[in-house]
Amino acid sequence: MTDQARGAIDVAVFGAGRIGRIHAGNLARQPGVRLKYVVDVNREAAAALAREHGVEAVDADAALEDASIGATVICSSTDTHADLIERSAARGKHVFCEKPVDLALERARSCKEAVERAGVVCMIGFQRRFDPTFAAVKARLESGEIGTPEMLVVTSRDPGAPPVDYIRRSGGIFKDMLIHDFDIFRWILDDEAETLHATGSCLTDPAIAEAGDIDATAVTIRTKRGRLCQINTSRRAAYGYDQRFEVLGSGGMLQAGNVRPTEVAAWSATAISTDLPEAFFLERYRAAYANEIAHFFEAVTRGTPVRTTIADGVKALELAEAATRSWREGHAVRLGGAAD
Amino acid sequence: MTDQARGAIDVAVFGAGRIGRIHAGNLARQPGVRLKYVVDVNREAAAALAREHGVEAVDADAALEDASIGATVICSSTDTHADLIERSAARGKHVFCEKPVDLALERARSCKEAVERAGVVCMIGFQRRFDPTFAAVKARLESGEIGTPEMLVVTSRDPGAPPVDYIRRSGGIFKDMLIHDFDIFRWILDDEAETLHATGSCLTDPAIAEAGDIDATAVTIRTKRGRLCQINTSRRAAYGYDQRFEVLGSGGMLQAGNVRPTEVAAWSATAISTDLPEAFFLERYRAAYANEIAHFFEAVTRGTPVRTTIADGVKALELAEAATRSWREGHAVRLGGAAD
Amino acid sequence: MTDQARGAIDVAVFGAGRIGRIHAGNLARQPGVRLKYVVDVNREAAAALAREHGVEAVDADAALEDASIGATVICSSTDTHADLIERSAARGKHVFCEKPVDLALERARSCKEAVERAGVVCMIGFQRRFDPTFAAVKARLESGEIGTPEMLVVTSRDPGAPPVDYIRRSGGIFKDMLIHDFDIFRWILDDEAETLHATGSCLTDPAIAEAGDIDATAVTIRTKRGRLCQINTSRRAAYGYDQRFEVLGSGGMLQAGNVRPTEVAAWSATAISTDLPEAFFLERYRAAYANEIAHFFEAVTRGTPVRTTIADGVKALELAEAATRSWREGHAVRLGGAAD
Amino acid sequence: MTDQARGAIDVAVFGAGRIGRIHAGNLARQPGVRLKYVVDVNREAAAALAREHGVEAVDADAALEDASIGATVICSSTDTHADLIERSAARGKHVFCEKPVDLALERARSCKEAVERAGVVCMIGFQRRFDPTFAAVKARLESGEIGTPEMLVVTSRDPGAPPVDYIRRSGGIFKDMLIHDFDIFRWILDDEAETLHATGSCLTDPAIAEAGDIDATAVTIRTKRGRLCQINTSRRAAYGYDQRFEVLGSGGMLQAGNVRPTEVAAWSATAISTDLPEAFFLERYRAAYANEIAHFFEAVTRGTPVRTTIADGVKALELAEAATRSWREGHAVRLGGAAD
Repeated sequence: MTDQARGAIDVAVFGAGRIGRIHAGNLARQPGVRLKYVVDVNREAAAALAREHGVEAVDADAALEDASIGATVICSSTDTHADLIERSAARGKHVFCEKPVDLALERARSCKEAVERAGVVCMIGFQRRFDPTFAAVKARLESGEIGTPEMLVVTSRDPGAPPVDYIRRSGGIFKDMLIHDFDIFRWILDDEAETLHATGSCLTDPAIAEAGDIDATAVTIRTKRGRLCQINTSRRAAYGYDQRFEVLGSGGMLQAGNVRPTEVAAWSATAISTDLPEAFFLERYRAAYANEIAHFFEAVTRGTPVRTTIADGVKALELAEAATRSWREGHAVRLGGAAD
Repeated sequence: MTDQARGAIDVAVFGAGRIGRIHAGNLARQPGVRLKYVVDVNREAAAALAREHGVEAVDADAALEDASIGATVICSSTDTHADLIERSAARGKHVFCEKPVDLALERARSCKEAVERAGVVCMIGFQRRFDPTFAAVKARLESGEIGTPEMLVVTSRDPGAPPVDYIRRSGGIFKDMLIHDFDIFRWILDDEAETLHATGSCLTDPAIAEAGDIDATAVTIRTKRGRLCQINTSRRAAYGYDQRFEVLGSGGMLQAGNVRPTEVAAWSATAISTDLPEAFFLERYRAAYANEIAHFFEAVTRGTPVRTTIADGVKALELAEAATRSWREGHAVRLGGAAD
Repeated sequence: MTDQARGAIDVAVFGAGRIGRIHAGNLARQPGVRLKYVVDVNREAAAALAREHGVEAVDADAALEDASIGATVICSSTDTHADLIERSAARGKHVFCEKPVDLALERARSCKEAVERAGVVCMIGFQRRFDPTFAAVKARLESGEIGTPEMLVVTSRDPGAPPVDYIRRSGGIFKDMLIHDFDIFRWILDDEAETLHATGSCLTDPAIAEAGDIDATAVTIRTKRGRLCQINTSRRAAYGYDQRFEVLGSGGMLQAGNVRPTEVAAWSATAISTDLPEAFFLERYRAAYANEIAHFFEAVTRGTPVRTTIADGVKALELAEAATRSWREGHAVRLGGAAD
Repeated sequence: MTDQARGAIDVAVFGAGRIGRIHAGNLARQPGVRLKYVVDVNREAAAALAREHGVEAVDADAALEDASIGATVICSSTDTHADLIERSAARGKHVFCEKPVDLALERARSCKEAVERAGVVCMIGFQRRFDPTFAAVKARLESGEIGTPEMLVVTSRDPGAPPVDYIRRSGGIFKDMLIHDFDIFRWILDDEAETLHATGSCLTDPAIAEAGDIDATAVTIRTKRGRLCQINTSRRAAYGYDQRFEVLGSGGMLQAGNVRPTEVAAWSATAISTDLPEAFFLERYRAAYANEIAHFFEAVTRGTPVRTTIADGVKALELAEAATRSWREGHAVRLGGAAD
């Protein structure tokens, strides 16, 4: 009996870069999931990843037109996301797509509608929700351990800025970097923004300012129910990748801390020291990446809902756009109309 | 040879409440400093504290008119501060005064001018600058350990809201509670605010909202040099008094944590647990209160400058006023004209 | 081209219990390594594990007589270890075997000689040396970070005692449980025992005493170079599995701590609490098990030495036997003759 | 009305060294306690300390013959302890005396009997029992928080060895340094030793070995009830003064950790680091010294029992002597006859 016969699902991965390789490796470990194609405009990268998994490298059309492909995993460049989502959805294929849906809010919204019309599963890769520490905080919040959440403080810092060339095409720090933090905000406070204020500075490299962007931000959100959220971010933390948040509730506080490579403590003549946090997102979110792919295929297989929908992707983008506007115009902005 | 002959300084303490008792105890321990009078409109409280130290309880006029009094320590209610500062200064007495100088910015400014005209020392009780942990962070910042400071995140939470009656007379949360945090901001980032945004909510007790105030705030300050500061506060943390901050610099980060009563860790069948932070300001800042009084009398005796001047008191009040306005009007405010 | 042709190595796993399943899963992930047989006297267990990997369940003879099998992984019951090692070695198969080599020291020694005569690789499963935290301490020690090691304190506690029936066949706590700690001692202090003192008590369950064993021990070793080691163990720690050690050196100290499932801290009205350590050895040493299997096949493939040889297995057993004698006789014992 | 009339107690301090100065300062702060004399064979030291407190420096006879002296505080050299205790007791004066009672066990025992005959209070300065962290562990143990205590691990390390000249007169490391740890053992496990094994090495300075002593020890005690205790000590920890212990109980574990000067955490490009422990005993046990003196005078004034009696002093000395013997003779020793 073949996998297919047993109901296995064949998958095409778009994008053979860092994150594509991780997803390919993780999905290959799912029972009943079979990687079939790797697609990348960089044919060499596609071929290498395909070879590693003993599968075929094909072009996008071939993958999308193959009716046996049940799901696509989209890790290609941001400007291809919306198009690949729509084409996948139109052919009834389920979609896992890296954030953001698109840099343009309107495009992201129409994409969301296309997905809804098609009735396929579409999960956006907000992997942080699948981090064991972050997920444990969420579960404990929901158990009522600290009562009603009132205030969220998010610290989100990268170890260093990407090349300015990347920044130029990134949509700006709010869409590129804080989009994850906006998703964390919505998930943890379980509420929608009413007003948002963002400010920031370019402190690490003047070239970033010349590219019209900033590298340090301070965002405050007040929700419809009056809850408060502060997000502080920087493109450059000398000590590495810093991913923490804490929620104050009516009955206590929950903190989500960084993860360390080892539990060694060294007592020297000058200090007691421990490891820095895991170096960057590939290390810190290793378990999260595995968990989110497992979650996606479980949802596809069992027909259960996904935790991070394309609607979440659009919402996070709305906040990123509001933050960009607040920063540019120098005043707080009110978030739009009727929330869904 | 009497203390006086040796150059000892006689002191009158105004206010025999909690904090007055602490300052009286601490100053009695300074070499060359002698408590002479205790003043309080509550005569019983004044008499009790005076008796404890074997000194006299007198009224304000008697204390101020006694030429042998070299310094006053003002811990009476806020509405008496400015008046007592000015009367002390006019008689050439050095002044240590609890924050705030006054709830009205104009009155605080004129008070500051009176002090400057009189040429006396006037120290404002921003005791946090004298906390061993906070002071160590400042010293290490100044040593260049983490390069240029870029971002400050302040967490400042009380264990519970004071009576609404107190809140009504307090000048509002920004002047009553955050004034300390605004001072920390100026001290740690060593810069002045250019813009400030404040928002907040009333989450713990509707009576606070009815009194026109809030109990949770989120403040963002951007400095003239582009540095960022976020302050989050609450009147009620179920786990107690929470006083932390962290400074991100170009070369690393320094965190100032809470202080615990003991270093016990308990490993039970459900968790590993440690002590909560010291219960409230009297416990947390015990060392800070002793240090600041020692610093004041050292400054008075040696003619060295004080670390927290009346100008700092006015500056913090300006920020508190700006924050109040930002919160009420719903937009960020620009801080005024020429900095000192 | 087949795996075989490419130089892949075929493997038979003996023992389809908890640890056998883990090793089977890990070795299946090694490039160039192919699980071929699962062997277990419990035929159902063997079949289940074989099915999971799409391989064959056979009996021991079939596996050992198949010349294509290049290596055996022995996770069957202790009383089968020495025999399977010798039979594997005699057929030129490399061996990975769980501890202990045998409960009888003489048998373990003759087994070691057989392995040496055969010239095969034989690695004993002291997985703790492959734990990321423990291995980092070792590497930092070797880098000279804390100078010369002088004192080692090992804390090694299980979450609960095994069934008394198991204890009866276990060889006693020193051979069953502390054998790992004795290996840690030799590895970390890089020295051999000169004298050893062991004492202990039965504190958790009288049935253990009736079985002639104890459940709590305190061991002290003094090495040939005068270094000191203390090991404290218990079969029952109410808070779970506790695996820590610390090394004091002439220039500082290195501590190896427990690993926690998440980095959540909860601040309640009574305490600040964090996760308990990983529940038991399967969770705590998950990475270690993967690392040791990778190390074994790398050694086999490349001809490099293994980190935990059968000689190490014999040495640890010598210490376990000495400890048993010290405890029974109530005095310190001197470790024998010339060390190898 | 004079202090005397009010029932104040006049005190003579013997020994004007480091610890004498601390006790003098602390007792001067007790209500109803009045320092009257300072005694030291070093007359200059005596005069200096006396001057600081505005009291008289006299010789031992003068102090002991003054009937108004109600209590003596003995901080002079060890060889004077027993004599001063007995002379104080004979004159009905209560006694606070630094450890040890005497280096000779017999002398200590006869001293204890003299105290008992005289019926005066005699407290031995085991200040560790008054450390807030250690005392909290004891209180929580007594509350039953972790069930029955089963195992105690004590880590006790000095920042550096004293001069060899001091070591020569010290009675050896077990009487000089571990005597405190033996007291901790008896206090925390609330049981008496049945067998004791001690070993050790000279690792930091050959001159210590030449003086017939060691600088690193490993002690194991098994109590009458079968509880276990391990103590590890070193004269030299490169990172400073290390004073920790942990108690495993049937229901959990309590750890007593070191105390740090500040709660600063520094995140650099290489590690996250925190303060070293307080530098040495004067800093670490600052609160403990104040608490023990307060406890002594409270006991004297109210007629309540003291927590650390001369009997405790003798018991600790018995363990120190047993340890010395065990180390010298190379075998475990059984502790003598009927415990009191």
